[in-house]
Amino acid sequence: MQLPKNLHLDAKMTRFINKKKHDIGVAPDEMIFRGDKKIEKVLLRIIDFDADTLTEDFVTTVQEVSKFKDENTVTWLNIDGLHNLAIMEEIAHAFDLDSLVMAEVLNTEARPKIIDYDNCTLITIKMLQQDPDSGKIEMENLSLILAQSVLITFQERKGDVFEPVRERIRKQKKRIRNGGTDYLTFALLDIVVDNYLYVISLLGEKIETLEENLLLNPKQDVINEINNYKRELNFLRKNIKPAKEMIFSLAKMDSEFITESTYVHFKELQDNISQASDSSDSYREILSDQLNIYHTTISSKLNDIMKFLTVFSVIFIPLTFIAGIYGTNFDNVPELHYEYSYFIMWAVIVVVAVGMLFYFRRKKWL
Amino acid sequence: MQLPKNLHLDAKMTRFINKKKHDIGVAPDEMIFRGDKKIEKVLLRIIDFDADTLTEDFVTTVQEVSKFKDENTVTWLNIDGLHNLAIMEEIAHAFDLDSLVMAEVLNTEARPKIIDYDNCTLITIKMLQQDPDSGKIEMENLSLILAQSVLITFQERKGDVFEPVRERIRKQKKRIRNGGTDYLTFALLDIVVDNYLYVISLLGEKIETLEENLLLNPKQDVINEINNYKRELNFLRKNIKPAKEMIFSLAKMDSEFITESTYVHFKELQDNISQASDSSDSYREILSDQLNIYHTTISSKLNDIMKFLTVFSVIFIPLTFIAGIYGTNFDNVPELHYEYSYFIMWAVIVVVAVGMLFYFRRKKWL
Amino acid sequence: MQLPKNLHLDAKMTRFINKKKHDIGVAPDEMIFRGDKKIEKVLLRIIDFDADTLTEDFVTTVQEVSKFKDENTVTWLNIDGLHNLAIMEEIAHAFDLDSLVMAEVLNTEARPKIIDYDNCTLITIKMLQQDPDSGKIEMENLSLILAQSVLITFQERKGDVFEPVRERIRKQKKRIRNGGTDYLTFALLDIVVDNYLYVISLLGEKIETLEENLLLNPKQDVINEINNYKRELNFLRKNIKPAKEMIFSLAKMDSEFITESTYVHFKELQDNISQASDSSDSYREILSDQLNIYHTTISSKLNDIMKFLTVFSVIFIPLTFIAGIYGTNFDNVPELHYEYSYFIMWAVIVVVAVGMLFYFRRKKWL
Amino acid sequence: MQLPKNLHLDAKMTRFINKKKHDIGVAPDEMIFRGDKKIEKVLLRIIDFDADTLTEDFVTTVQEVSKFKDENTVTWLNIDGLHNLAIMEEIAHAFDLDSLVMAEVLNTEARPKIIDYDNCTLITIKMLQQDPDSGKIEMENLSLILAQSVLITFQERKGDVFEPVRERIRKQKKRIRNGGTDYLTFALLDIVVDNYLYVISLLGEKIETLEENLLLNPKQDVINEINNYKRELNFLRKNIKPAKEMIFSLAKMDSEFITESTYVHFKELQDNISQASDSSDSYREILSDQLNIYHTTISSKLNDIMKFLTVFSVIFIPLTFIAGIYGTNFDNVPELHYEYSYFIMWAVIVVVAVGMLFYFRRKKWL
Amino acid sequence: MQLPKNLHLDAKMTRFINKKKHDIGVAPDEMIFRGDKKIEKVLLRIIDFDADTLTEDFVTTVQEVSKFKDENTVTWLNIDGLHNLAIMEEIAHAFDLDSLVMAEVLNTEARPKIIDYDNCTLITIKMLQQDPDSGKIEMENLSLILAQSVLITFQERKGDVFEPVRERIRKQKKRIRNGGTDYLTFALLDIVVDNYLYVISLLGEKIETLEENLLLNPKQDVINEINNYKRELNFLRKNIKPAKEMIFSLAKMDSEFITESTYVHFKELQDNISQASDSSDSYREILSDQLNIYHTTISSKLNDIMKFLTVFSVIFIPLTFIAGIYGTNFDNVPELHYEYSYFIMWAVIVVVAVGMLFYFRRKKWL
Repeated sequence: MQLPKNLHLDAKMTRFINKKKHDIGVAPDEMIFRGDKKIEKVLLRIIDFDADTLTEDFVTTVQEVSKFKDENTVTWLNIDGLHNLAIMEEIAHAFDLDSLVMAEVLNTEARPKIIDYDNCTLITIKMLQQDPDSGKIEMENLSLILAQSVLITFQERKGDVFEPVRERIRKQKKRIRNGGTDYLTFALLDIVVDNYLYVISLLGEKIETLEENLLLNPKQDVINEINNYKRELNFLRKNIKPAKEMIFSLAKMDSEFITESTYVHFKELQDNISQASDSSDSYREILSDQLNIYHTTISSKLNDIMKFLTVFSVIFIPLTFIAGIYGTNFDNVPELHYEYSYFIMWAVIVVVAVGMLFYFRRKKWL
Repeated sequence: MQLPKNLHLDAKMTRFINKKKHDIGVAPDEMIFRGDKKIEKVLLRIIDFDADTLTEDFVTTVQEVSKFKDENTVTWLNIDGLHNLAIMEEIAHAFDLDSLVMAEVLNTEARPKIIDYDNCTLITIKMLQQDPDSGKIEMENLSLILAQSVLITFQERKGDVFEPVRERIRKQKKRIRNGGTDYLTFALLDIVVDNYLYVISLLGEKIETLEENLLLNPKQDVINEINNYKRELNFLRKNIKPAKEMIFSLAKMDSEFITESTYVHFKELQDNISQASDSSDSYREILSDQLNIYHTTISSKLNDIMKFLTVFSVIFIPLTFIAGIYGTNFDNVPELHYEYSYFIMWAVIVVVAVGMLFYFRRKKWL
Repeated sequence: MQLPKNLHLDAKMTRFINKKKHDIGVAPDEMIFRGDKKIEKVLLRIIDFDADTLTEDFVTTVQEVSKFKDENTVTWLNIDGLHNLAIMEEIAHAFDLDSLVMAEVLNTEARPKIIDYDNCTLITIKMLQQDPDSGKIEMENLSLILAQSVLITFQERKGDVFEPVRERIRKQKKRIRNGGTDYLTFALLDIVVDNYLYVISLLGEKIETLEENLLLNPKQDVINEINNYKRELNFLRKNIKPAKEMIFSLAKMDSEFITESTYVHFKELQDNISQASDSSDSYREILSDQLNIYHTTISSKLNDIMKFLTVFSVIFIPLTFIAGIYGTNFDNVPELHYEYSYFIMWAVIVVVAVGMLFYFRRKKWL
Repeated sequence: MQLPKNLHLDAKMTRFINKKKHDIGVAPDEMIFRGDKKIEKVLLRIIDFDADTLTEDFVTTVQEVSKFKDENTVTWLNIDGLHNLAIMEEIAHAFDLDSLVMAEVLNTEARPKIIDYDNCTLITIKMLQQDPDSGKIEMENLSLILAQSVLITFQERKGDVFEPVRERIRKQKKRIRNGGTDYLTFALLDIVVDNYLYVISLLGEKIETLEENLLLNPKQDVINEINNYKRELNFLRKNIKPAKEMIFSLAKMDSEFITESTYVHFKELQDNISQASDSSDSYREILSDQLNIYHTTISSKLNDIMKFLTVFSVIFIPLTFIAGIYGTNFDNVPELHYEYSYFIMWAVIVVVAVGMLFYFRRKKWL
Repeated sequence: MQLPKNLHLDAKMTRFINKKKHDIGVAPDEMIFRGDKKIEKVLLRIIDFDADTLTEDFVTTVQEVSKFKDENTVTWLNIDGLHNLAIMEEIAHAFDLDSLVMAEVLNTEARPKIIDYDNCTLITIKMLQQDPDSGKIEMENLSLILAQSVLITFQERKGDVFEPVRERIRKQKKRIRNGGTDYLTFALLDIVVDNYLYVISLLGEKIETLEENLLLNPKQDVINEINNYKRELNFLRKNIKPAKEMIFSLAKMDSEFITESTYVHFKELQDNISQASDSSDSYREILSDQLNIYHTTISSKLNDIMKFLTVFSVIFIPLTFIAGIYGTNFDNVPELHYEYSYFIMWAVIVVVAVGMLFYFRRKKWL
């Protein structure tokens, strides 16, 4: 696979925090969409299944959804696009969700978290995935509202990241068809965490490739590249850290919507996110080592040059002095008048130069 | 928005600790105002509300306040200015507050904390906000005394930072009008934490902007700027750390004045202050990376100059030596007397110079 | 206030550990005085009070003390000077203290600690205070033995550090006169912690003042000063750390000698010692930043000098070469014989020099 | 023993993470073998024993295994090679293992973990061992399924690492023959941890040997070696960390398959893995110190050279100047015409040179 | 006291880990002596006492020991030398010790630990002590087996480190004669920890003495010394860390062999080992600061030299150029023919040189 030059993180995405003045003091249940409108039309997609039956549909109105919600089946409603507040309110109404919950869903810049409400549990997490076309990494906020027989997922844009889960449902995989909304939650979070691992893996490959260039050709480019990777890794770590906290809370949580048998899967999520976290720590250390190697290589190269040049100059200094001596215009410089003194001077010069070369080499300065 | 050159933190504000000798050994319940008198006249402002009624008033004497306190409504008394000890004592008397509590309120240099007393809970936190006119960041100590139906807030100066909450009360927002003093406490602390996020966001914007200048034009200014941002970040972190501890205690606290349903909001506060704390950690790391990049860029630039100059000198050294040789006054220097020997000398000089240039370039020293 | 050049820590005081060979294997209840004899005569001072009565006296024999101990009042016995073992043993006997307790009191080099014995609680802490005359910071070990109605405090030397507490007792401050030995313990520890804050504050002022000198006049002195402050801060941190552990244990302790209502004060102690600890951490970081700034400033200054000098030499190198060429004694050097060639040489020299100056300036090397 | 130049870690092995795109969204119970096929044929080896009887056999079909499983003896089934999914499924069927368990066994790139299932406990750990022939260190994933009377171990390749345990079983060592599957689990994990200690010990020996070379002959090689060791240590630490977490969980675990008396052994495992972890931390620090020593030595050597050369040049500079003065062609230079002025010039040159040498030596610059 | 040049740690002792290949897979209860045989003959020394009686004896066979063990007194059996496996087995048999326990005692390279067995508690710790003759620091593994009325201690070599305890027993010190085996255990561990403190104190004295040399005479020796101290401190820290863990476990342990009243002493041990640990941390930091000071001093000294030399050269460069100009052989150089032009040249040279000196001094470059 052809790797993109870097992960092409949006400048905006890498902003660590972006609090706006007019957001201060807003009520926690005020439904304001703080994100960018990333797609044109809100998409509502429903999958309703139990072990034996399966209904899959795109719906256009929230009313159509309502007929699924009371049935004795697992209902998964996926919403792509959050900017239409009217639809959001209808959903809140249809599923009897507190405005607090909806306000959280709309607050796409918040920290990943898990909150247990009376009639549902809200999970938010940042999703990172590589755009299949451009190779760019895209981030979006994913919210999951987990209730008894209903799971509502909110994505900021249309995507097929959950397609493998849908495929497993369609193929009548026993575990997912028999599981409840909690197992479905696990399956979706598992994809999110797997994508973290995949993105780290992509970045890691480039970091490890860099190592060879580092020794062969330590140019300024390399250091820019290292700094880029550092920034990207920072960005990943910043998203993984609260996700890890969230998943560890989830695995310890005592929620009525989670059956005992699902905890073993949440423990697996824990292990995976820990692996992501450990790996990003390791790469961080590797980058820091690489920076050191770069500086050492550069400075040892410069030292060699300076040493060479200095030794070179030093050899000529006494030679030039000798020549200078015999360029003086004293009336009485006896050496000037011997027939071979010019040649003797050359001999002395050669002897001095060779002697110094020999001395410097013995001292290992050359 | 035009950003100020820096956050204009008062020199005094950035003092990490300022313990005065005469404060040692003072009784913990001695009511001494340790801060600066920041406004002229103490302002008492009362908002008394329940789901249906609302009274809002500026009062001048503490007696006027008393009539509100026993009613079955939420009473929010906000006091701007702490320097009038007589008023403070009246308040203590009117609301039956221990002198310990009042002494804490007056100790504006203390660490943010939460203390559970018999008949009230005291919360203190540092408030940071940007002055709308000057763009300066101002810090003041905020104290909240949370009792059953009364919330008393103490600010060091007059300000409209809580205006959005008053607005929500006036607009009959259901949640705040139905909530008790605990929900009101949350709403106020939420504003404080949002202001932290906002201030970090302002600082972050400047730090991230700096990055470009860093590579294009690495001057001494940049390093001063980095050091300024570091100091400002230190200042923020120093205030956020104990505030975070305080809020985490609050969310775990078992207080009679806090209803079950408010804990979900305190958990939200936790998430927000964690985000502030994480972001300040991230910016700290970024600043430290920027310092490294600066030094690397500077030193690589200097290295280039020194390398160039050294190579330049080294090329002339043998040339000057050659000229020196033929400036000697020996009687018998055969080369001096050939017709073209001067030109041959030039040829040799050119050959040596070009040869060295070629050699240095092949060695990548130029 | 005129600040002393540095905190004048005794060389001995800054020794982190000083275990002597002959102390190895000594029984834990052996009463050996390990410290220096810091005053001539042991001073016994007694204050006996309840809400209504107050007796204050200097006594000379331990027997005189005994009459106070069984009364229904709070008895505070303060002992200045530990070197008289006979008195120590009498005290142990009078108050029925285990020899273990007394051995701990005498071991003035031990780590601050809190130990709960059967009939008393022992608290030891290092006290730091500024001598009012010399401005020097002095350290001594303070031990408190807290029992039901008796508090015995041991100081290594005579001092008036606890005078504010005595004053509060004399002035019939309600809280302290109604409180028990536990409240008195708090009041004394509060003074100790306040003194920590004050000493850090003194050091902090000097550290923050240093910052300006740092940029204006970065001399070797500055670095010695930074290293001094670092050492002093290390010394403070080393004493604050175990004191913090001790105070946190105290606040969590389940002791029969501590009444419920005193815990709120111990929590305040916690906050204060945390502030001391946080501030010392902050100053540590500031010192480390200052060291970096110093090095950066120094090296950037040196770089400027070296760059200037190198450029200066480089300009003369080709000029000297040109002069060298026309100092050769070849028979046939046509340029030598033109009438204006000497002036042309000067012109060439000026052109080359100016050209190089221009080139270096455009390259921003000058 | 002849130590290999380095531990010869496979490049692939040192990859910290290697998530493939097509693995995202795979069901947790999907049996996919993600590793490399490391041996040709799957080997099934059975040891069935109690205190008195012992059966040891290589079997070719899973059916043959089944006859052992219900007996009242400890049955240890070891499987070398995971690539044959048919066999894996038969094993799952024979021992009534959930497909989740088998999927974990096949996922050889996962993080070491311990999971408690209904009818078994799964333990996975990375095994590091030195190939006896090549001296190379090889890593493989080891999975243990611990049930009441059955222990199934899965290795990626054929190996004799567990031979000492088999030997102890054969020699009728009382403890292992009387112990259950839990003691057998301990015995196997003990070998894994001992191998960690051994590998660290090998690496440690080389690191400590390096120290001498470091001071005698600080060449660029040394730094490459240090960087290699750092990378290898990173690799070890990355495997030891999760193994330590796993073993600490195991020692605290409340599993029906572990008898009380085995916990003392698990505690021993804890101590051993802690020793491995501590040692790797220590070596890490040593390597970092070595890097510093290297840089200090190199730079102090370079400084000596540069100082020598600079002093050398500086001595000649005034001498050359003197000679230059008397090379001028002024009509009236009185010194030129004295009989001994040439010799006086030499005398002056010698005096100046010796004087400077003397001065530099007194200043300790030479 | 004359301090040895360094602590003379055996090269072997400083090896952080030394796992041998043939130790892998050995049964945990296999009695193998892994250490060096440090003395010729195993010494068995018995002290049997209660409040009133005392028997002290060297015995040669384990049978002689047995007669003491059932009596109602405290029996302390000390064994110097572990290499005689026959004796070890007899002891195991006589005191009914599991082979596991004995195997641990013999494993002298293991990590300090505490294990609670059915009929005894095993404590192992590294003992560091200064040989009174050579001043060398020696390390040995100490094991204590604590049972109801018997304490068995195992030392690798003959030593009198526990003599102070024996002396206290002989002198009928009440506490030790009335205490049980648990108090005796405390008394012995106290000596071990005191020796840690003493060794750190010795090292600390040398580190603090170094500081003065550092500024006066920063030679390469100093850095070697710092690195030596660092290595020695590393070695101490490596032994103190697990000892601290062990002692903290001991103080929290719920063992039938430890009476309530002994816990206060274990808490004292905690404080002492914490002091050792804190001090070693402090010295580590001091060493790291010293390294920095060394580098700063060295580099600032070098900078001064280079600056001086460069300025010196720079002053001569234009002077040499001037002389070069008048060494040219042009036919028409008017200045050559004025009578005083040679002296004018000298005047110009002096003016230029003085001007440059003045300029450089004003710029503070000299």
